[in-house]
Amino acid sequence: MYFKEELEQKAAMVEDALNRYLPPPDTYPPLIHQAMRYSVMGGGKRLRPALVMAGAETVGGSAVDVLPAACAIELIHAYSLVHDDLPAMDNDDYRRGKPTNHKVYGEAMALLAGDALLTLAFKLLAECPSSHPKDVVRVIHEIALGAGTLGLIGGQVVDTFSAGEEIDEKLLNYIHRNKTGAMYRLSVRSGAILAGAKEKELANLTEYAEHLGLAFQIKDDILDCEGDEKKLGKPVGSDIRNKKATYPSLFGMENSREKARVAINNAIAALRTFGSKADFMRALAKFVIERDF
Amino acid sequence: MYFKEELEQKAAMVEDALNRYLPPPDTYPPLIHQAMRYSVMGGGKRLRPALVMAGAETVGGSAVDVLPAACAIELIHAYSLVHDDLPAMDNDDYRRGKPTNHKVYGEAMALLAGDALLTLAFKLLAECPSSHPKDVVRVIHEIALGAGTLGLIGGQVVDTFSAGEEIDEKLLNYIHRNKTGAMYRLSVRSGAILAGAKEKELANLTEYAEHLGLAFQIKDDILDCEGDEKKLGKPVGSDIRNKKATYPSLFGMENSREKARVAINNAIAALRTFGSKADFMRALAKFVIERDF
Repeated sequence: MYFKEELEQKAAMVEDALNRYLPPPDTYPPLIHQAMRYSVMGGGKRLRPALVMAGAETVGGSAVDVLPAACAIELIHAYSLVHDDLPAMDNDDYRRGKPTNHKVYGEAMALLAGDALLTLAFKLLAECPSSHPKDVVRVIHEIALGAGTLGLIGGQVVDTFSAGEEIDEKLLNYIHRNKTGAMYRLSVRSGAILAGAKEKELANLTEYAEHLGLAFQIKDDILDCEGDEKKLGKPVGSDIRNKKATYPSLFGMENSREKARVAINNAIAALRTFGSKADFMRALAKFVIERDF
Repeated sequence: MYFKEELEQKAAMVEDALNRYLPPPDTYPPLIHQAMRYSVMGGGKRLRPALVMAGAETVGGSAVDVLPAACAIELIHAYSLVHDDLPAMDNDDYRRGKPTNHKVYGEAMALLAGDALLTLAFKLLAECPSSHPKDVVRVIHEIALGAGTLGLIGGQVVDTFSAGEEIDEKLLNYIHRNKTGAMYRLSVRSGAILAGAKEKELANLTEYAEHLGLAFQIKDDILDCEGDEKKLGKPVGSDIRNKKATYPSLFGMENSREKARVAINNAIAALRTFGSKADFMRALAKFVIERDF
Protein backbone atom coordinates (compact mmCIF):
# COMPACT_ATOMS: atom_id res chain seq x y z
CA MET A 1 0.00 0.00 0.00
CA TYR A 2 1.20 3.52 -0.70
CA PHE A 3 2.03 5.64 2.33
CA LYS A 4 -0.77 8.19 1.92
CA GLU A 5 -3.38 5.47 1.55
CA GLU A 6 -2.06 3.71 4.64
CA LEU A 7 -2.04 6.94 6.64
CA GLU A 8 -5.60 7.64 5.52
CA GLN A 9 -6.63 4.11 6.43
CA LYS A 10 -5.12 4.45 9.89
CA ALA A 11 -6.71 7.89 10.35
CA ALA A 12 -10.10 6.41 9.38
CA MET A 13 -9.66 3.61 11.93
CA VAL A 14 -8.86 6.20 14.60
CA GLU A 15 -11.80 8.40 13.59
CA ASP A 16 -14.14 5.42 13.83
CA ALA A 17 -12.72 4.28 17.17
CA LEU A 18 -12.88 7.78 18.66
CA ASN A 19 -16.52 7.96 17.64
CA ARG A 20 -17.16 4.73 19.56
CA TYR A 21 -15.03 5.63 22.61
CA LEU A 22 -16.39 9.15 23.13
CA PRO A 23 -19.75 9.13 24.93
CA PRO A 24 -22.61 9.77 22.44
CA PRO A 25 -23.43 13.49 22.14
CA ASP A 26 -26.79 13.09 23.89
CA THR A 27 -25.27 11.43 26.97
CA TYR A 28 -26.20 13.37 30.11
CA PRO A 29 -24.93 16.04 30.66
CA PRO A 30 -25.05 16.52 26.86
CA LEU A 31 -23.22 19.82 26.38
CA ILE A 32 -19.85 18.60 27.64
CA HIS A 33 -20.02 15.51 25.46
CA GLN A 34 -20.71 17.74 22.47
CA ALA A 35 -17.81 20.01 23.46
CA MET A 36 -15.48 17.00 23.74
CA ARG A 37 -16.49 15.74 20.31
CA TYR A 38 -16.14 19.19 18.77
CA SER A 39 -12.41 19.25 19.47
CA VAL A 40 -11.69 15.61 18.71
CA MET A 41 -13.76 14.48 15.72
CA GLY A 42 -13.16 15.31 12.08
CA GLY A 43 -9.83 17.06 12.26
CA GLY A 44 -6.10 16.69 12.54
CA LYS A 45 -3.66 14.53 10.69
CA ARG A 46 -3.85 11.75 13.33
CA LEU A 47 -0.09 11.34 13.09
CA ARG A 48 0.32 10.44 16.78
CA PRO A 49 -2.26 7.62 16.83
CA ALA A 50 -0.89 6.37 13.49
CA LEU A 51 2.50 6.16 15.24
CA VAL A 52 1.00 4.15 18.10
CA MET A 53 -0.36 1.66 15.55
CA ALA A 54 2.90 1.66 13.59
CA GLY A 55 4.82 1.11 16.84
CA ALA A 56 2.85 -2.08 17.41
CA GLU A 57 3.10 -3.29 13.79
CA THR A 58 6.84 -2.67 13.54
CA VAL A 59 7.48 -5.19 16.34
CA GLY A 60 4.99 -7.72 14.94
CA GLY A 61 1.83 -6.63 16.78
CA SER A 62 -1.60 -5.60 15.53
CA ALA A 63 -2.82 -2.05 14.92
CA VAL A 64 -6.37 -2.92 15.98
CA ASP A 65 -5.23 -4.23 19.36
CA VAL A 66 -3.68 -0.89 20.30
CA LEU A 67 -6.51 1.32 19.03
CA PRO A 68 -7.59 2.32 22.57
CA ALA A 69 -4.06 3.55 23.29
CA ALA A 70 -3.85 5.29 19.91
CA CYS A 71 -7.07 7.15 20.71
CA ALA A 72 -5.85 7.93 24.23
CA ILE A 73 -2.79 9.68 22.79
CA GLU A 74 -5.01 11.67 20.43
CA LEU A 75 -7.31 12.70 23.34
CA ILE A 76 -4.30 13.95 25.33
CA HIS A 77 -3.18 15.92 22.27
CA ALA A 78 -6.72 17.34 21.90
CA TYR A 79 -7.04 18.28 25.59
CA SER A 80 -3.72 20.13 25.49
CA LEU A 81 -4.88 22.16 22.48
CA VAL A 82 -8.25 23.01 24.07
CA HIS A 83 -6.54 24.28 27.23
CA ASP A 84 -3.75 26.06 25.29
CA ASP A 85 -6.32 27.99 23.28
CA LEU A 86 -8.10 29.37 26.39
CA PRO A 87 -8.00 33.14 26.99
CA ALA A 88 -5.80 32.67 30.07
CA MET A 89 -3.25 30.89 27.85
CA ASP A 90 -2.71 31.66 24.12
CA ASN A 91 -6.19 33.16 23.65
CA ASP A 92 -6.66 31.72 20.17
CA ASP A 93 -9.95 32.09 18.30
CA TYR A 94 -9.32 29.55 15.52
CA ARG A 95 -7.91 26.05 15.32
CA ARG A 96 -7.87 23.90 12.19
CA GLY A 97 -10.00 26.46 10.38
CA LYS A 98 -12.86 26.55 12.88
CA PRO A 99 -13.59 28.49 16.09
CA THR A 100 -11.78 27.18 19.18
CA ASN A 101 -13.69 25.22 21.79
CA HIS A 102 -14.24 28.11 24.21
CA LYS A 103 -15.49 30.37 21.40
CA VAL A 104 -18.30 27.87 20.82
CA TYR A 105 -18.98 26.41 24.29
CA GLY A 106 -17.65 29.10 26.62
CA GLU A 107 -14.60 29.09 28.87
CA ALA A 108 -16.01 26.99 31.71
CA MET A 109 -17.14 24.22 29.38
CA ALA A 110 -13.91 24.24 27.39
CA LEU A 111 -11.94 23.94 30.62
CA LEU A 112 -14.06 20.99 31.79
CA ALA A 113 -14.08 19.38 28.33
CA GLY A 114 -10.26 19.47 28.35
CA ASP A 115 -10.21 17.89 31.80
CA ALA A 116 -12.63 15.24 30.58
CA LEU A 117 -10.57 14.39 27.48
CA LEU A 118 -7.47 13.89 29.62
CA THR A 119 -9.40 11.71 32.06
CA LEU A 120 -11.00 9.66 29.28
CA ALA A 121 -7.54 9.04 27.82
CA PHE A 122 -6.53 7.11 30.94
CA LYS A 123 -9.76 5.13 30.86
CA LEU A 124 -8.95 4.04 27.29
CA LEU A 125 -5.39 3.11 28.22
CA ALA A 126 -6.87 0.66 30.71
CA GLU A 127 -8.86 -0.92 27.86
CA CYS A 128 -6.19 -2.62 25.72
CA PRO A 129 -7.53 -6.12 26.24
CA SER A 130 -4.95 -8.24 24.46
CA SER A 131 -1.92 -6.65 26.11
CA HIS A 132 -0.34 -7.98 29.30
CA PRO A 133 -1.61 -5.97 32.32
CA LYS A 134 2.01 -5.36 33.35
CA ASP A 135 2.67 -3.71 29.97
CA VAL A 136 -0.56 -1.69 30.28
CA VAL A 137 0.56 -0.38 33.70
CA ARG A 138 3.98 0.47 32.26
CA VAL A 139 2.43 2.41 29.38
CA ILE A 140 0.10 4.30 31.70
CA HIS A 141 3.06 5.19 33.90
CA GLU A 142 5.13 6.41 30.94
CA ILE A 143 2.28 8.43 29.46
CA ALA A 144 1.39 10.05 32.79
CA LEU A 145 5.05 10.94 33.26
CA GLY A 146 5.58 12.23 29.71
CA ALA A 147 2.30 14.17 29.59
CA GLY A 148 3.07 15.84 32.95
CA THR A 149 5.40 18.58 34.16
CA LEU A 150 8.52 16.66 33.11
CA GLY A 151 7.14 16.43 29.56
CA LEU A 152 4.17 17.96 27.71
CA ILE A 153 2.99 20.30 30.50
CA GLY A 154 6.55 21.34 31.34
CA GLY A 155 7.12 22.33 27.72
CA GLN A 156 3.84 24.21 27.73
CA VAL A 157 4.76 26.10 30.91
CA VAL A 158 8.14 27.20 29.58
CA ASP A 159 6.68 28.10 26.17
CA THR A 160 3.88 30.18 27.70
CA PHE A 161 5.96 31.97 30.31
CA SER A 162 8.96 32.68 28.10
CA ALA A 163 6.98 34.32 25.26
CA GLY A 164 8.57 37.68 24.48
CA GLU A 165 11.84 36.78 26.23
CA GLU A 166 15.22 36.06 24.70
CA ILE A 167 15.35 32.32 24.02
CA ASP A 168 18.57 30.46 23.20
CA GLU A 169 19.01 27.11 21.49
CA LYS A 170 19.03 25.21 24.80
CA LEU A 171 15.67 26.60 25.87
CA LEU A 172 14.13 26.18 22.41
CA ASN A 173 15.22 22.54 22.43
CA TYR A 174 13.74 22.07 25.91
CA ILE A 175 10.39 23.47 24.81
CA HIS A 176 10.19 21.35 21.69
CA ARG A 177 11.58 18.16 23.22
CA ASN A 178 8.81 18.38 25.81
CA LYS A 179 5.90 20.17 24.17
CA THR A 180 6.03 18.20 20.91
CA GLY A 181 8.68 15.53 21.30
CA ALA A 182 7.28 13.84 24.41
CA MET A 183 4.02 12.84 22.71
CA TYR A 184 5.82 11.50 19.62
CA ARG A 185 8.10 9.41 21.84
CA LEU A 186 5.13 8.20 23.90
CA SER A 187 3.12 7.31 20.80
CA VAL A 188 5.76 5.05 19.30
CA ARG A 189 6.79 3.52 22.63
CA SER A 190 3.19 2.85 23.79
CA GLY A 191 2.28 0.90 20.69
CA ALA A 192 5.51 -1.07 20.82
CA ILE A 193 5.31 -1.86 24.55
CA LEU A 194 1.67 -2.95 24.29
CA ALA A 195 2.66 -5.28 21.45
CA GLY A 196 5.38 -6.85 23.60
CA ALA A 197 8.48 -5.18 22.10
CA LYS A 198 11.94 -6.28 23.24
CA GLU A 199 14.00 -3.62 25.02
CA LYS A 200 16.46 -3.34 22.13
CA GLU A 201 13.60 -2.76 19.66
CA LEU A 202 12.16 -0.17 22.02
CA ALA A 203 15.48 1.68 22.20
CA ASN A 204 15.70 1.92 18.39
CA LEU A 205 12.10 3.05 18.06
CA THR A 206 12.62 5.66 20.76
CA GLU A 207 15.58 7.07 18.83
CA TYR A 208 13.39 7.20 15.70
CA ALA A 209 10.61 9.00 17.57
CA GLU A 210 12.94 11.61 19.07
CA HIS A 211 14.43 12.59 15.72
CA LEU A 212 10.97 12.54 14.12
CA GLY A 213 9.51 14.83 16.79
CA LEU A 214 12.33 17.32 16.30
CA ALA A 215 11.90 17.32 12.50
CA PHE A 216 8.13 17.76 12.89
CA GLN A 217 8.60 20.80 15.11
CA ILE A 218 11.19 22.45 12.86
CA LYS A 219 8.84 21.93 9.91
CA ASP A 220 5.97 23.42 11.93
CA ASP A 221 8.07 26.50 12.62
CA ILE A 222 8.95 26.77 8.92
CA LEU A 223 5.29 26.44 7.89
CA ASP A 224 4.34 29.16 10.36
CA CYS A 225 6.72 31.47 8.43
CA GLU A 226 5.93 30.56 4.84
CA GLY A 227 3.03 28.12 4.79
CA ASP A 228 -0.34 28.50 3.06
CA GLU A 229 -3.03 29.61 5.54
CA LYS A 230 -5.72 27.74 3.63
CA LYS A 231 -3.88 24.44 3.65
CA LEU A 232 -2.80 24.85 7.29
CA GLY A 233 -6.26 25.88 8.52
CA LYS A 234 -4.70 28.53 10.77
CA PRO A 235 -3.14 31.97 10.33
CA VAL A 236 0.61 31.95 9.63
CA GLY A 237 3.05 34.28 11.37
CA SER A 238 1.57 33.63 14.83
CA ASP A 239 5.00 32.83 16.28
CA ILE A 240 6.34 36.21 15.23
CA ARG A 241 3.23 38.01 16.50
CA ASN A 242 3.46 36.16 19.84
CA LYS A 243 7.22 36.82 19.97
CA LYS A 244 7.96 33.12 20.26
CA ALA A 245 11.42 31.81 19.44
CA THR A 246 11.46 29.32 16.54
CA TYR A 247 14.11 27.42 14.60
CA PRO A 248 13.97 29.87 11.67
CA SER A 249 14.24 32.89 14.00
CA LEU A 250 17.29 31.40 15.77
CA PHE A 251 19.08 29.71 12.87
CA GLY A 252 17.63 31.16 9.66
CA MET A 253 15.49 29.32 7.13
CA GLU A 254 18.21 27.39 5.29
CA ASN A 255 19.88 26.08 8.44
CA SER A 256 16.49 25.06 9.80
CA ARG A 257 15.71 23.08 6.66
CA GLU A 258 19.08 21.39 6.96
CA LYS A 259 18.47 20.54 10.65
CA ALA A 260 15.13 18.98 9.73
CA ARG A 261 16.75 16.93 6.95
CA VAL A 262 19.45 15.66 9.30
CA ALA A 263 16.85 14.74 11.92
CA ILE A 264 14.83 12.76 9.36
CA ASN A 265 17.94 10.92 8.16
CA ASN A 266 18.76 10.03 11.76
CA ALA A 267 15.18 8.88 12.34
CA ILE A 268 15.29 6.59 9.32
CA ALA A 269 18.75 5.28 10.29
CA ALA A 270 17.40 4.23 13.69
CA LEU A 271 15.00 1.83 11.89
CA ARG A 272 17.74 -0.15 10.13
CA THR A 273 17.13 -3.42 12.01
CA PHE A 274 13.39 -3.60 11.31
CA GLY A 275 13.33 -4.43 7.59
CA SER A 276 10.12 -3.89 5.65
CA LYS A 277 7.99 -3.82 8.82
CA ALA A 278 9.19 -0.25 9.33
CA ASP A 279 8.31 0.98 5.80
CA PHE A 280 5.35 3.00 7.07
CA MET A 281 7.52 4.70 9.68
CA ARG A 282 10.15 5.54 7.07
CA ALA A 283 7.57 7.02 4.73
CA LEU A 284 6.01 8.95 7.61
CA ALA A 285 9.39 10.47 8.41
CA LYS A 286 9.73 11.75 4.85
CA PHE A 287 6.14 12.99 4.87
CA VAL A 288 6.76 15.01 8.02
CA ILE A 289 9.24 17.34 6.31
CA GLU A 290 7.66 17.31 2.86
CA ARG A 291 4.13 18.16 4.00
CA ASP A 292 2.60 21.59 3.34
CA PHE A 293 -0.13 21.31 6.02
CA MET B 1 -6.28 3.61 68.89
CA TYR B 2 -8.91 6.32 69.14
CA PHE B 3 -10.46 7.44 65.88
CA LYS B 4 -9.08 10.98 65.83
CA GLU B 5 -5.56 9.75 66.48
CA GLU B 6 -5.87 7.19 63.73
CA LEU B 7 -7.23 9.77 61.28
CA GLU B 8 -4.36 12.10 62.19
CA GLN B 9 -1.88 9.28 61.76
CA LYS B 10 -3.28 8.44 58.32
CA ALA B 11 -3.31 12.13 57.34
CA ALA B 12 0.35 12.41 58.40
CA MET B 13 1.24 9.37 56.28
CA VAL B 14 -0.51 10.96 53.29
CA GLU B 15 1.15 14.33 53.88
CA ASP B 16 4.56 12.66 54.01
CA ALA B 17 3.88 10.57 50.90
CA LEU B 18 2.55 13.54 48.92
CA ASN B 19 5.72 15.42 49.79
CA ARG B 20 7.74 12.56 48.34
CA TYR B 21 5.55 12.01 45.27
CA LEU B 22 5.25 15.66 44.20
CA PRO B 23 8.34 16.86 42.31
CA PRO B 24 10.55 19.01 44.61
CA PRO B 25 9.67 22.72 44.36
CA ASP B 26 12.94 23.59 42.59
CA THR B 27 12.37 21.02 39.82
CA TYR B 28 12.48 22.69 36.39
CA PRO B 29 10.21 24.45 35.54
CA PRO B 30 9.97 25.47 39.22
CA LEU B 31 6.87 27.67 39.29
CA ILE B 32 4.42 24.94 38.32
CA HIS B 33 5.84 22.57 40.92
CA GLN B 34 5.39 25.27 43.53
CA ALA B 35 1.83 25.90 42.34
CA MET B 36 1.04 22.18 42.54
CA ARG B 37 2.40 21.95 46.08
CA TYR B 38 0.54 25.09 47.14
CA SER B 39 -2.83 23.44 46.55
CA VAL B 40 -1.92 19.99 47.84
CA MET B 41 0.34 20.30 50.88
CA GLY B 42 -0.67 21.27 54.39
CA GLY B 43 -4.42 21.38 54.04
CA GLY B 44 -7.61 19.39 53.98
CA LYS B 45 -8.93 16.64 56.18
CA ARG B 46 -7.47 13.90 53.94
CA LEU B 47 -10.70 11.92 54.34
CA ARG B 48 -10.56 10.44 50.85
CA PRO B 49 -7.01 9.06 51.11
CA ALA B 50 -7.81 7.80 54.62
CA LEU B 51 -10.71 5.89 53.04
CA VAL B 52 -8.39 4.36 50.44
CA MET B 53 -6.18 3.07 53.25
CA ALA B 54 -9.16 1.95 55.31
CA GLY B 55 -10.56 0.17 52.24
CA ALA B 56 -7.36 -1.89 52.05
CA GLU B 57 -7.20 -2.57 55.79
CA THR B 58 -10.83 -3.61 56.07
CA VAL B 59 -10.21 -6.49 53.67
CA GLY B 60 -6.93 -7.49 55.33
CA GLY B 61 -4.49 -5.41 53.27
CA SER B 62 -1.90 -2.83 54.25
CA ALA B 63 -2.35 0.95 54.33
CA VAL B 64 1.26 1.57 53.30
CA ASP B 65 0.91 -0.56 50.16
CA VAL B 66 -1.92 1.61 48.81
CA LEU B 67 -0.36 4.99 49.67
CA PRO B 68 0.28 5.84 45.98
CA ALA B 69 -3.41 5.31 45.22
CA ALA B 70 -4.46 7.25 48.34
CA CYS B 71 -2.34 10.18 47.17
CA ALA B 72 -3.67 9.86 43.62
CA ILE B 73 -7.23 10.29 44.89
CA GLU B 74 -6.16 13.36 46.88
CA LEU B 75 -4.46 14.85 43.80
CA ILE B 76 -7.64 14.39 41.75
CA HIS B 77 -9.61 16.09 44.53
CA ALA B 78 -7.04 18.93 44.59
CA TYR B 79 -7.06 19.40 40.80
CA SER B 80 -10.85 19.62 40.74
CA LEU B 81 -10.77 22.35 43.41
CA VAL B 82 -8.06 24.35 41.61
CA HIS B 83 -10.05 24.30 38.36
CA ASP B 84 -13.39 24.93 40.13
CA ASP B 85 -11.98 28.05 41.76
CA LEU B 86 -10.87 29.61 38.45
CA PRO B 87 -12.57 32.85 37.32
CA ALA B 88 -14.28 31.05 34.41
CA MET B 89 -15.87 28.66 36.95
CA ASP B 90 -16.79 29.63 40.54
CA ASN B 91 -14.32 32.55 40.67
CA ASP B 92 -13.39 31.94 44.31
CA ASP B 93 -10.64 33.96 46.02
CA TYR B 94 -10.20 31.82 49.12
CA ARG B 95 -9.95 28.12 49.86
CA ARG B 96 -9.16 26.61 53.28
CA GLY B 97 -8.40 30.08 54.65
CA LYS B 98 -5.79 31.02 52.06
CA PRO B 99 -5.87 32.63 48.60
CA THR B 100 -6.84 30.26 45.79
CA ASN B 101 -4.17 28.97 43.40
CA HIS B 102 -4.87 31.45 40.58
CA LYS B 103 -4.81 34.40 43.02
CA VAL B 104 -1.20 33.46 43.83
CA TYR B 105 0.14 31.98 40.58
CA GLY B 106 -2.17 33.49 37.96
CA GLU B 107 -4.82 31.84 35.81
CA ALA B 108 -2.55 30.18 33.25
CA MET B 109 -0.38 28.54 35.90
CA ALA B 110 -3.39 27.42 37.97
CA LEU B 111 -4.92 25.86 34.88
CA LEU B 112 -1.70 23.99 34.06
CA ALA B 113 -1.09 23.03 37.70
CA GLY B 114 -4.56 21.47 37.81
CA ASP B 115 -3.84 19.55 34.61
CA ALA B 116 -0.53 18.42 36.10
CA LEU B 117 -2.12 17.20 39.35
CA LEU B 118 -4.63 15.11 37.40
CA THR B 119 -1.86 13.67 35.23
CA LEU B 120 0.37 12.92 38.22
CA ALA B 121 -2.52 11.07 39.87
CA PHE B 122 -2.50 8.48 37.08
CA LYS B 123 1.28 8.14 37.32
CA LEU B 124 0.90 7.31 41.04
CA LEU B 125 -1.86 4.81 40.35
CA ALA B 126 0.60 2.92 38.17
CA GLU B 127 3.00 2.77 41.16
CA CYS B 128 1.25 0.42 43.61
CA PRO B 129 4.02 -2.21 43.52
CA SER B 130 2.55 -4.95 45.68
CA SER B 131 -0.83 -5.08 43.91
CA HIS B 132 -1.55 -7.38 40.99
CA PRO B 133 -1.19 -5.47 37.68
CA LYS B 134 -4.69 -6.65 36.70
CA ASP B 135 -6.09 -4.99 39.82
CA VAL B 136 -4.07 -1.84 39.13
CA VAL B 137 -5.53 -1.64 35.61
CA ARG B 138 -9.03 -2.18 37.03
CA VAL B 139 -8.56 0.64 39.57
CA ILE B 140 -7.21 3.02 36.91
CA HIS B 141 -10.19 2.21 34.71
CA GLU B 142 -12.68 2.81 37.55
CA ILE B 143 -11.04 6.05 38.64
CA ALA B 144 -10.84 7.42 35.10
CA LEU B 145 -14.50 6.55 34.63
CA GLY B 146 -15.65 7.97 37.99
CA ALA B 147 -13.55 11.14 37.72
CA GLY B 148 -14.87 11.81 34.20
CA THR B 149 -18.08 13.08 32.68
CA LEU B 150 -20.11 10.17 34.08
CA GLY B 151 -18.90 11.07 37.60
CA LEU B 152 -16.93 13.95 39.10
CA ILE B 153 -16.79 16.17 36.00
CA GLY B 154 -20.43 15.44 35.12
CA GLY B 155 -21.48 16.58 38.61
CA GLN B 156 -19.34 19.67 38.21
CA VAL B 157 -20.90 20.51 34.84
CA VAL B 158 -24.47 20.21 36.11
CA ASP B 159 -23.65 22.09 39.31
CA THR B 160 -21.98 24.96 37.41
CA PHE B 161 -24.53 25.29 34.66
CA SER B 162 -27.62 24.93 36.85
CA ALA B 163 -26.65 27.65 39.36
CA GLY B 164 -29.56 30.05 39.71
CA GLU B 165 -32.03 27.60 38.20
CA GLU B 166 -34.82 25.70 39.93
CA ILE B 167 -33.37 22.40 41.13
CA ASP B 168 -35.46 19.46 42.28
CA GLU B 169 -34.47 16.51 44.46
CA LYS B 170 -33.56 14.37 41.47
CA LEU B 171 -31.11 16.92 40.10
CA LEU B 172 -29.65 17.66 43.53
CA ASN B 173 -29.05 13.96 44.04
CA TYR B 174 -27.41 13.71 40.62
CA ILE B 175 -25.03 16.56 41.43
CA HIS B 176 -24.03 15.19 44.80
CA ARG B 177 -23.84 11.55 43.78
CA ASN B 178 -21.37 12.58 41.10
CA LYS B 179 -19.58 15.67 42.37
CA THR B 180 -18.93 14.30 45.86
CA GLY B 181 -20.15 10.72 45.94
CA ALA B 182 -18.07 9.39 43.07
CA MET B 183 -14.75 10.16 44.77
CA TYR B 184 -15.88 8.59 48.06
CA ARG B 185 -16.94 5.45 46.24
CA LEU B 186 -13.69 5.37 44.25
CA SER B 187 -11.60 5.88 47.39
CA VAL B 188 -13.03 2.94 49.29
CA ARG B 189 -13.17 0.67 46.23
CA SER B 190 -9.62 1.47 45.05
CA GLY B 191 -8.05 0.57 48.38
CA ALA B 192 -10.10 -2.62 48.62
CA ILE B 193 -9.46 -3.76 45.03
CA LEU B 194 -5.71 -3.10 45.31
CA ALA B 195 -5.68 -5.21 48.49
CA GLY B 196 -7.37 -8.08 46.66
CA ALA B 197 -10.94 -7.74 48.01
CA LYS B 198 -13.53 -10.38 47.15
CA GLU B 199 -16.49 -9.15 45.07
CA LYS B 200 -18.92 -9.56 47.98
CA GLU B 201 -16.69 -7.46 50.26
CA LEU B 202 -16.44 -4.88 47.51
CA ALA B 203 -20.23 -4.69 47.17
CA ASN B 204 -20.64 -4.04 50.91
CA LEU B 205 -17.90 -1.43 50.96
CA THR B 206 -19.42 0.29 47.95
CA GLU B 207 -22.75 0.54 49.77
CA TYR B 208 -20.94 2.02 52.79
CA ALA B 209 -19.17 4.58 50.59
CA GLU B 210 -22.34 5.69 48.82
CA HIS B 211 -24.22 6.38 52.05
CA LEU B 212 -21.13 8.04 53.52
CA GLY B 213 -20.72 10.35 50.52
CA LEU B 214 -24.37 11.41 50.75
CA ALA B 215 -24.10 12.13 54.49
CA PHE B 216 -20.89 14.09 53.92
CA GLN B 217 -22.55 16.28 51.32
CA ILE B 218 -25.69 16.94 53.40
CA LYS B 219 -23.45 17.90 56.33
CA ASP B 220 -21.43 20.19 54.03
CA ASP B 221 -24.65 21.93 52.98
CA ILE B 222 -25.67 22.30 56.65
CA LEU B 223 -22.27 23.73 57.61
CA ASP B 224 -22.53 26.24 54.76
CA CYS B 225 -25.74 27.50 56.43
CA GLU B 226 -24.75 27.54 60.07
CA GLY B 227 -21.06 26.65 60.37
CA ASP B 228 -18.26 28.70 61.93
CA GLU B 229 -16.24 30.49 59.23
CA LYS B 230 -13.05 30.28 61.29
CA LYS B 231 -13.29 26.54 61.76
CA LEU B 232 -14.33 25.93 58.16
CA GLY B 233 -11.61 28.18 56.70
CA LYS B 234 -14.09 29.54 54.16
CA PRO B 235 -17.02 31.98 54.16
CA VAL B 236 -20.40 30.44 54.98
CA GLY B 237 -23.55 31.21 53.01
CA SER B 238 -21.82 30.81 49.65
CA ASP B 239 -24.51 28.40 48.39
CA ILE B 240 -27.23 30.98 49.02
CA ARG B 241 -25.17 33.75 47.41
CA ASN B 242 -24.45 31.55 44.38
CA LYS B 243 -28.14 30.48 44.29
CA LYS B 244 -27.18 26.83 44.52
CA ALA B 245 -29.75 24.26 45.60
CA THR B 246 -28.80 22.44 48.82
CA TYR B 247 -30.42 19.86 51.08
CA PRO B 248 -31.47 22.52 53.66
CA SER B 249 -32.93 24.75 50.94
CA LEU B 250 -34.97 21.86 49.49
CA PHE B 251 -35.93 19.97 52.66
CA GLY B 252 -35.35 22.32 55.58
CA MET B 253 -32.72 22.00 58.27
CA GLU B 254 -34.39 19.34 60.44
CA ASN B 255 -35.22 17.00 57.57
CA SER B 256 -31.68 17.40 56.24
CA ARG B 257 -30.22 16.42 59.60
CA GLU B 258 -32.50 13.40 59.65
CA LYS B 259 -31.47 12.38 56.10
CA ALA B 260 -27.82 12.58 57.12
CA ARG B 261 -28.47 10.43 60.22
CA VAL B 262 -30.28 7.80 58.14
CA ALA B 263 -27.45 7.76 55.60
CA ILE B 264 -24.86 7.23 58.33
CA ASN B 265 -26.89 4.40 59.88
CA ASN B 266 -27.13 2.76 56.45
CA ALA B 267 -23.40 3.22 55.94
CA ILE B 268 -22.61 1.53 59.25
CA ALA B 269 -25.11 -1.26 58.58
CA ALA B 270 -23.33 -2.08 55.31
CA LEU B 271 -20.19 -2.91 57.34
CA ARG B 272 -21.84 -5.63 59.44
CA THR B 273 -19.81 -8.53 58.01
CA PHE B 274 -16.40 -6.98 58.63
CA GLY B 275 -16.08 -7.16 62.44
CA SER B 276 -13.49 -5.02 64.19
CA LYS B 277 -11.50 -4.49 60.97
CA ALA B 278 -14.13 -1.89 60.00
CA ASP B 279 -13.98 0.06 63.28
CA PHE B 280 -12.15 2.97 61.66
CA MET B 281 -14.77 3.19 58.90
CA ARG B 282 -17.59 3.14 61.45
CA ALA B 283 -15.98 5.92 63.47
CA LEU B 284 -15.32 7.92 60.31
CA ALA B 285 -19.00 7.67 59.41
CA LYS B 286 -19.98 9.18 62.78
CA PHE B 287 -17.27 11.83 62.48
CA VAL B 288 -18.62 12.92 59.09
CA ILE B 289 -21.92 14.15 60.55
CA GLU B 290 -20.59 15.29 63.92
CA ARG B 291 -17.75 17.43 62.55
CA ASP B 292 -17.89 21.22 62.69
CA PHE B 293 -15.21 21.78 60.00
